[in-house]
Amino acid sequence: MKIITITGYKGGVGKSTTAIHLATYFSEFYQTILIDGDPNRTALSWAERGSLPFTVADERQAMKQVSGAEFIVIDTPARPNSDDLKELAKGCDLLVLPTAPDILSLQPMLETAKDVGEANYRALITIALPPPNKDGETMRQDLKEGGIPVFNTIVRRTVGYQRAALEGKPIRDLSDSRLRAAWQDYKKLGKEIQEVIHGR
Amino acid sequence: MKIITITGYKGGVGKSTTAIHLATYFSEFYQTILIDGDPNRTALSWAERGSLPFTVADERQAMKQVSGAEFIVIDTPARPNSDDLKELAKGCDLLVLPTAPDILSLQPMLETAKDVGEANYRALITIALPPPNKDGETMRQDLKEGGIPVFNTIVRRTVGYQRAALEGKPIRDLSDSRLRAAWQDYKKLGKEIQEVIHGR
Repeated sequence: MKIITITGYKGGVGKSTTAIHLATYFSEFYQTILIDGDPNRTALSWAERGSLPFTVADERQAMKQVSGAEFIVIDTPARPNSDDLKELAKGCDLLVLPTAPDILSLQPMLETAKDVGEANYRALITIALPPPNKDGETMRQDLKEGGIPVFNTIVRRTVGYQRAALEGKPIRDLSDSRLRAAWQDYKKLGKEIQEVIHGR
Repeated sequence: MKIITITGYKGGVGKSTTAIHLATYFSEFYQTILIDGDPNRTALSWAERGSLPFTVADERQAMKQVSGAEFIVIDTPARPNSDDLKELAKGCDLLVLPTAPDILSLQPMLETAKDVGEANYRALITIALPPPNKDGETMRQDLKEGGIPVFNTIVRRTVGYQRAALEGKPIRDLSDSRLRAAWQDYKKLGKEIQEVIHGR
């Protein structure tokens, strides 16, 4: 059984969207469950509005629903402190930290990450503007230079995620093929994660 | 796999003590794990000071540690709202609600329990003074008359629990046989719970 946990330094950085799309990716290979531990219950609401290709469990019922799962994605509240981050990291195979390419997020991220130390985590740049805008790639380089492990994949901003949330689907399953294109980002990210957790 | 969850209307009602002693009882029959979901981390500290006959897992690592468990005891934060209570109840085989024999606790308990409705829960009178004091039994009757399912077992107050907490043991394992006597209360409660969850 593999566990990945998604947490974030601030709200609004695509944390629940990332949890949902990674669970979608892994549900293609494994019996997957998403545990919604965010008090906003974004993932549960998403599931209730439509149909997701995996079970979403309320964290208060997680123990009961988790048996038989091969892959667990845990969505957590944002704003963990460094103690939380360490404990969360110990509880999973990989901790994913989405962050928008926003210079204000960089400093707190560098500071917290310093405390986390050797933990098995990766930062993920999300909500990046499409080229020619380079903010996402610049942030990625800044994180790397600051010693923060960061995914190669950058998740681009697209209106497709809002549509997907409204329809209660992953972006992969939207009927509009232009909106579906963004699925490639999470597919690429999913492959990167596979390599990280199986290379460990 | 069976799951019991312990929660309480207020702090200081023996919630973590109950979680630890029920986990002790069930560890005599099943591979048991206690998940500490109380931000005070009382159960984790108890375990760190000595030796408990079961694993205590930080809730942030629960998913990783729970595999193989036959019996799960979950300690939660106190002061749940009625929505929490319903969700907690759905996530377990039995929800245990410790309460001190304190008339101030009665009214909020009756109100919340009304909202919980048909859920699989039982109130538990804890920290009762020994006979001839009858506060515990009086509270038990009041709850019953108020339509609240309540355990027959009443857990008595004793200094043994403080000693047990200090030594990091369950009260069952204390060397002083007078202090050990209180173990009978949780043993009786454990049997009552066995009947409830296997009779369901």
